Amino acid sequence: MRHYIGALDRCAAPGDDTAMRAVDIIRKKRDGHALDAAEIAAFIDGATSGSWPDYQLSALLMAIWLRGMNPEEIVALTGVMTRSGRVLNHDEIPGPKADKHSTGGVGDSTSLVLVPLAVACGVVVPMMSGRGLGHTGGTLDKLEAIPGFRTGLSIDEMKAALREVGAAMIGQTADIAPADRKLYALRDVTGTVESLPLIAASIMSKKLAEGIGSLVLDVKFGDGAFLKDINESRQLARTMVDIGKAHGVRTQALLTAMDNPLGFAVGNSLEVIECHETLKGRGPEDLTELSVELAAWMVHLAGVAANLEDARGRVTKVLKSGEALERWRRIVEWQGGDPRCLDECRRLPLAPKRLPVKAERGGYITAIAAEAIGLAAMRLGAGRSRPEDAVDHGVGILFRIVVGERVKVGDTIAEVYGRDDGEMQEVADTVRTACKIGDAEPGPKKLIRETLP
Amino acid sequence: MRHYIGALDRCAAPGDDTAMRAVDIIRKKRDGHALDAAEIAAFIDGATSGSWPDYQLSALLMAIWLRGMNPEEIVALTGVMTRSGRVLNHDEIPGPKADKHSTGGVGDSTSLVLVPLAVACGVVVPMMSGRGLGHTGGTLDKLEAIPGFRTGLSIDEMKAALREVGAAMIGQTADIAPADRKLYALRDVTGTVESLPLIAASIMSKKLAEGIGSLVLDVKFGDGAFLKDINESRQLARTMVDIGKAHGVRTQALLTAMDNPLGFAVGNSLEVIECHETLKGRGPEDLTELSVELAAWMVHLAGVAANLEDARGRVTKVLKSGEALERWRRIVEWQGGDPRCLDECRRLPLAPKRLPVKAERGGYITAIAAEAIGLAAMRLGAGRSRPEDAVDHGVGILFRIVVGERVKVGDTIAEVYGRDDGEMQEVADTVRTACKIGDAEPGPKKLIRETLP
Repeated sequence: MRHYIGALDRCAAPGDDTAMRAVDIIRKKRDGHALDAAEIAAFIDGATSGSWPDYQLSALLMAIWLRGMNPEEIVALTGVMTRSGRVLNHDEIPGPKADKHSTGGVGDSTSLVLVPLAVACGVVVPMMSGRGLGHTGGTLDKLEAIPGFRTGLSIDEMKAALREVGAAMIGQTADIAPADRKLYALRDVTGTVESLPLIAASIMSKKLAEGIGSLVLDVKFGDGAFLKDINESRQLARTMVDIGKAHGVRTQALLTAMDNPLGFAVGNSLEVIECHETLKGRGPEDLTELSVELAAWMVHLAGVAANLEDARGRVTKVLKSGEALERWRRIVEWQGGDPRCLDECRRLPLAPKRLPVKAERGGYITAIAAEAIGLAAMRLGAGRSRPEDAVDHGVGILFRIVVGERVKVGDTIAEVYGRDDGEMQEVADTVRTACKIGDAEPGPKKLIRETLP
Repeated sequence: MRHYIGALDRCAAPGDDTAMRAVDIIRKKRDGHALDAAEIAAFIDGATSGSWPDYQLSALLMAIWLRGMNPEEIVALTGVMTRSGRVLNHDEIPGPKADKHSTGGVGDSTSLVLVPLAVACGVVVPMMSGRGLGHTGGTLDKLEAIPGFRTGLSIDEMKAALREVGAAMIGQTADIAPADRKLYALRDVTGTVESLPLIAASIMSKKLAEGIGSLVLDVKFGDGAFLKDINESRQLARTMVDIGKAHGVRTQALLTAMDNPLGFAVGNSLEVIECHETLKGRGPEDLTELSVELAAWMVHLAGVAANLEDARGRVTKVLKSGEALERWRRIVEWQGGDPRCLDECRRLPLAPKRLPVKAERGGYITAIAAEAIGLAAMRLGAGRSRPEDAVDHGVGILFRIVVGERVKVGDTIAEVYGRDDGEMQEVADTVRTACKIGDAEPGPKKLIRETLP
């Protein structure tokens, strides 16, 4: 009854400096003030060591969600999150180290294309990726569609791969940014996921721990992206670019449209096959364009090329010459994958049943709603709704058309790869609805909308 | 890396409806929306049963702190918090049941005076109080200064006391509003104490569980109150009055000044002695005035008197006649206290050492900074900085002057009752500084500033 007093916080728990400090820090952010570097370090140290209980972490996360953070706070937060675990350094390995990060799309398998492109141009790529969740896919899941491919390399193995084939494509090891893992698990269950400072710090803390000198960010916007609005994407991109710069990593962001799925394939094996086709010069235009452009930026930022134009030329050359394809073969082989997959797509797991999706009217394909397609593929088993779910590499959706194309009634617009007839039928209906057909030819839309800074 | 997706919340943890619901509720409040009754019930049920983990509770508490609650939400919250535990009903005991609650002051021992005043007028008072914390005192600590006085009565004993002597003054039993106890412990360590909706619901949920038909609220403002600003106090008062009404309890609030300590005494035994003096008609003016007014409102709201004026007359009569004093003797005796204390103050524990505080200049006492006095008394051991601390009933500060009085250099303005010379000297210095002396006579200030509604 008498507890509700202004002096309480001054009086509470003297002698317990940690608890005292946590409450002070929470109150400061709650009241809209900026936290200083020591306070942010106390928060992240508390998360990593467990000395801050979850309820104090989540109270501060909610205060950050509602009050935001200024650029200095975000830079400091990212720094201490990076240093909460192991920070790699590959200085002993010759060549510039660079990576790419995407905020997540549907049918977006650019990593499997741009890594060999960049490596063939002389860039070393120590890439740590995540798994897919929800309607967006994950690089690790795609790689693991390749029989034998091991994404769980140790750091020593990673270094050997970098030295021998120029790239390693692995999952985050447990000792990379453990504070992020702790905070993300809490954010997931406390409604504090969608916070720009927390998202930017989460992404960048893991990238800064990779030991890279430059980073290209593919920040998506539109229906299939987690940020639908280009303005929000631009803000996130700018924040991440600033974090990278402040921590001495040359960072470039591309804002790219994610209204339609990228390429024809959505699903792990299907996308791997599409990447191989792309590396053979037969890939979809959009996937090729984006992969080349991202790789060119990697090559440019890494200092290998004189300028971006020169970098584009080099990337295009290694794509056309087949050097990138051969580099990919070596990378796959080094990580235990079956290199015969590159030429024989039957070596990849594919679901036994196919169901065509037919156009119910004629006209122009004006849009393919990417989020609905991503969720439909997830439903087939290509993605996961919970982190602990397994994925089915063989299922997915393969489009036969692209936006802007003209179709007649009864034309096959896509094929559903699945195992269960009922489920496939429902997914086919979803795909049909997601493909908008209109009478007017849609105007061309730029895929890469802006570059930052 | 790919976790940051809009679809996450749709997808997260299907099959786990409780977790799902908690996140939804947190997000709704986070986004500034009002929660409905079912959502508020899920929150409080989750807190009481433990099905909501602490980190979800604290995330929602922070969202409530920052987003607030509308009147309907606060009424619903209070209701479910009340029903989280046992709700008493004393219908089988004749007479109207009423109580008073104060938001906490310095030297405020009105409960010990107004309970016998109200009971002597025919009101039945099932009062549950808390202990002191920080610079404000608590009714339970004062009662326990009386040798033998038991505040830990069972509900059956409480009912017997109500029937036989008309009042029971006890601590909250563990089964009264357990949700409040759970939430308060979390709020204390997550920076979410000072929230009007949470404070109002916390206070009122415990009062509504007492089984009373009417309630008088003494809402303090000023230096020694937890809300310094009268506007904030008025808002809290109005909110609590509305909660009481919505739950069928006739509720009246008085806004009273807590700039100076109430009465002369600050410290448990000293305040008990002062209360006995007051019941004998020799108490300080301010303590007498406030006790009589609060008791009159209790008598009026309880329907015993025709109107407030009539109620004041009845209360004044039982004070003057000694009936209230005799009623107090019976109450003390029923709860195991030594009734000889009423006449022999040496029966109360008092610290062995006294240190006079002398005026360093002449002039008018213009103010006595109540919060500093409360903290000084706490330092002596009269109060506690942490809930688990013990209090020393014998220590405290006894003023010899009141605001507006004229003093000469060297006059004793107060006496410090203590056990440690060094500590007493420091407290004496604090008391000297807290007593402002000026050349101009301060104007009179009203103690009871407003009544609501």
